[in-house]
Amino acid sequence: MRTLPITLAALLLSTTPLSAKPADKPDDNAQVLRIIDEGTNRSQVMQTAQHLTDVIGPRMTNSPGMRKAEAWTQEKFREWKLANIHKEGFAFGRGWWIEKSSVRMVTPRPIQLTAIPIAWTPATKGALSAPIIVAPMSKPQHFEKWRGKLAGKIVLVSMPGEGSEPGKPAFQRLSDEELGKLDSYEQPDWNPDKLAEWMKQARFERELADFLAREGAVAYATRSRRDGKLLHGEGYLHRTGETPALPGVEIAAEDYRRLARLALVGDAPTLEIDSQVHFDDSDPQGYNIIADIPGSDASGAYVMAGAHLDSWAAGDGAADNAAGSAMIMEAARILSAMGVKPKRTIRFALWSGEEQSLYGSIAYVEQHLANRPAPDRKLDAGELYYSWATRYPITTLPGHKNLAAYFNLDNGSGKIRGIYAENNQAVVPIFRQWLEPFGPMGASKVVIQKTEGTDHQFMQSVGIPAFQFIQDPLDYGSRVHHSQIDTFDHLKAEDMRQGAIILASFLLNAANADTPLPRGPVPTQPNVTDPFAYPDPDQDR
Amino acid sequence: MRTLPITLAALLLSTTPLSAKPADKPDDNAQVLRIIDEGTNRSQVMQTAQHLTDVIGPRMTNSPGMRKAEAWTQEKFREWKLANIHKEGFAFGRGWWIEKSSVRMVTPRPIQLTAIPIAWTPATKGALSAPIIVAPMSKPQHFEKWRGKLAGKIVLVSMPGEGSEPGKPAFQRLSDEELGKLDSYEQPDWNPDKLAEWMKQARFERELADFLAREGAVAYATRSRRDGKLLHGEGYLHRTGETPALPGVEIAAEDYRRLARLALVGDAPTLEIDSQVHFDDSDPQGYNIIADIPGSDASGAYVMAGAHLDSWAAGDGAADNAAGSAMIMEAARILSAMGVKPKRTIRFALWSGEEQSLYGSIAYVEQHLANRPAPDRKLDAGELYYSWATRYPITTLPGHKNLAAYFNLDNGSGKIRGIYAENNQAVVPIFRQWLEPFGPMGASKVVIQKTEGTDHQFMQSVGIPAFQFIQDPLDYGSRVHHSQIDTFDHLKAEDMRQGAIILASFLLNAANADTPLPRGPVPTQPNVTDPFAYPDPDQDR
Repeated sequence: MRTLPITLAALLLSTTPLSAKPADKPDDNAQVLRIIDEGTNRSQVMQTAQHLTDVIGPRMTNSPGMRKAEAWTQEKFREWKLANIHKEGFAFGRGWWIEKSSVRMVTPRPIQLTAIPIAWTPATKGALSAPIIVAPMSKPQHFEKWRGKLAGKIVLVSMPGEGSEPGKPAFQRLSDEELGKLDSYEQPDWNPDKLAEWMKQARFERELADFLAREGAVAYATRSRRDGKLLHGEGYLHRTGETPALPGVEIAAEDYRRLARLALVGDAPTLEIDSQVHFDDSDPQGYNIIADIPGSDASGAYVMAGAHLDSWAAGDGAADNAAGSAMIMEAARILSAMGVKPKRTIRFALWSGEEQSLYGSIAYVEQHLANRPAPDRKLDAGELYYSWATRYPITTLPGHKNLAAYFNLDNGSGKIRGIYAENNQAVVPIFRQWLEPFGPMGASKVVIQKTEGTDHQFMQSVGIPAFQFIQDPLDYGSRVHHSQIDTFDHLKAEDMRQGAIILASFLLNAANADTPLPRGPVPTQPNVTDPFAYPDPDQDR
Repeated sequence: MRTLPITLAALLLSTTPLSAKPADKPDDNAQVLRIIDEGTNRSQVMQTAQHLTDVIGPRMTNSPGMRKAEAWTQEKFREWKLANIHKEGFAFGRGWWIEKSSVRMVTPRPIQLTAIPIAWTPATKGALSAPIIVAPMSKPQHFEKWRGKLAGKIVLVSMPGEGSEPGKPAFQRLSDEELGKLDSYEQPDWNPDKLAEWMKQARFERELADFLAREGAVAYATRSRRDGKLLHGEGYLHRTGETPALPGVEIAAEDYRRLARLALVGDAPTLEIDSQVHFDDSDPQGYNIIADIPGSDASGAYVMAGAHLDSWAAGDGAADNAAGSAMIMEAARILSAMGVKPKRTIRFALWSGEEQSLYGSIAYVEQHLANRPAPDRKLDAGELYYSWATRYPITTLPGHKNLAAYFNLDNGSGKIRGIYAENNQAVVPIFRQWLEPFGPMGASKVVIQKTEGTDHQFMQSVGIPAFQFIQDPLDYGSRVHHSQIDTFDHLKAEDMRQGAIILASFLLNAANADTPLPRGPVPTQPNVTDPFAYPDPDQDR
């Protein structure tokens, strides 16, 4: 199964150098020292992150916080003397933000619950009190069971579940062994059944919201997917005209389970929900922020680094992704302060709408790089995400050839330990060379693995050489990601300085390389489904 | 240094049997099977724990919740046909409970903070708004720096600190290696300097409350000692006449640190505190709950098991200590259901006031077992705890000789892995024998180590053979202990059934043993300070 890629990798490894060796030039070696000096001794990366998190706070796409961040990041790029600073719009929907909220159990005894309004659900009109009903629903087939039983109720729509037994440390750095495991090629898994299932799940939030409203429920509540009182509050019904009729809250797992148990042993508890949230419909467009360090090459060739600036609302969007945004901005500051005059333009992008469906980076692809056929109907946010790369053929735009490399940062504030070659075997030896100076800083590993779920994904899907760095996980996945503890004090300053330095160096190498990074063919419709698989009889298609 | 105890242990080990070997009697072997049957197939331990936690909820000493628990546990003992069911009072102070609370940052941007009123601080009069000042104070010498600067302010009295990097799993069971490390004798460390320092720290809460009131501050806030949004809300000024003048709240570490950083880079944030708490002064006495299975021996000899029923208010007091209380009650139910007629009476005790200073178990000692000279002044709660065992001579009461053994449970819901011999080398071989049937259930280890901090401590200090079991830690210390996630769903049902079974078996063994458990001499004033130590010049005495 792995013969093809290994052979290909071996072939490519034998053909080095595919590009010039920038680190062999004395100038480039000196440039690494200047980057390290600027990024260490005059670092601004934590000041940038602190402003985005503490001062501006959560940056939900199109919210007042995100608007402030869009303005402030452009100001900083101007202050740092970047060029071509502008924003690029795309259709998104409503702004939404939380002013104040409270969820209490009032009977059988008073408890202040830990809860958060679900994004893009409406406010309560003052405090709303009603008994709960525990009515777990995770697909439309479950509706029938609860029809006629929900009127006047606050509906608890999640299964109560059980407490977790976290057997791994919440905070981790990658061992050499763990890094090694990432260097493993996997053939693509193109499974129409899985896709159909994901698409159905992605539609369910809207279908559930409609069902609850039709049944006359007064509000709904979900259980946090993590315990330990962590909250997230994700919601995806952000488009104008799609706002759910009912207020929704996510309740901490411990509190949710207590409600469910109390409903089993006695009268249904009564909740009081006071959700003072606000919509902002002043501008339905989301905006990406762009800034350049112009290149000398007249061809229009450029390299780019990006991170999404938008966040969820539970925390301050620190690890996800003020960290990446601040490192992108710091790389821009470092290179601008050095006065570099690269061959190719170096572009810095701060994306919006990433959390809902990579809207911002999809918009960039569609505006600058390539198009796919339009979908046959309007897709919900999650449907857009799961299906975007399944429409063929790809039609490249003139700008497609100009983007020589894209580097993404969206894995928290952990230090860079290496880079994912993203199934591009041809870049492995080049990246090894580019990482050479940073081994003593902990970054030395180039692995073949492909990563998804953030803004390089759909650039890659149209054939752009687009990469993500390997970062130490810290406590990102275990407790910080999307939760209310995604705050500045979970960011690691030394790690972020290192990340910005390495990113700046990669960008300069990519911009000045004699030949652009090797890229694969523009993808065509794959045909890798197992032709001998029988349909799963339990699969509801 | 360890010659004496090892020699002593060897000597004692060579003199077995110190008591009869109950497990050698066929009757006793059969009794183990009956205990396991009753405690497994008709277990009520989780129903008991669920009522104490979900239904009754937090049980702060003298709060309405604790009053309900005092009544309900006596009802259950009556239902299970125990004898001599009664409560025993002791002086404690005020009841206090939380109806509703909210802490928000209102400027420079709105955030609903995670916070909890500090126990026994007064309510706000509606919502109180004021700017913060970060004024860390941890000893009276710090007051001078802030004098004249606190009027009209909400004073943040803790150091902001830094985020944690939890490098151990939150949920753990003890390995054989870890169990082995517990079997290590330590000579007592009687250090007057340390004691003086602890006593000063114990007084500081009251001194700080007085200082803040004199300075005209409007409220104060502390930082949670754990991050990850965990809260505790401990406070110790529970006595009538000692209530602080100002409302106090504990703020989640992430939120506290954000406030402190914002105050450094801009105008002091404004907080809005709405603390709807209530005092209950209907009865200043705390109460221990007592229930017996009467023994046939006319001497008045008894064995006892106890756990504290009181809790803090952030969670539902599940692991601390509905778990222990439910296992004590379940052992009573099992033995009563079996209709045992023990030689010595078996007594079950549910203590109150443990969380503030082991008030309930101290009261039991003073009422039934032994007295110490009165302190020379009225002591704060923490001072009482640190100094109680330092007053000599001990005067034993007639009941002292009757209490043949005490077993305590207060380490969460983790299964019993063995027992601490608490520096009583003579019981080691006896406990090994008593644990024999339970090796396959995971409980086999007898370790010499002495433990403190809960209700066996001061019985032990007057010469009673008083013990605690070794339990798997689970996530008790890492995140549950005293926090708002100390709820029912962090309890482990299988573990608690095992614990109740082993406790019941130990109690029956202790009650029926031909001779009582070996006990040491009644302690006299120790003199083990290093006579050659120079005073630490930095120590502020």
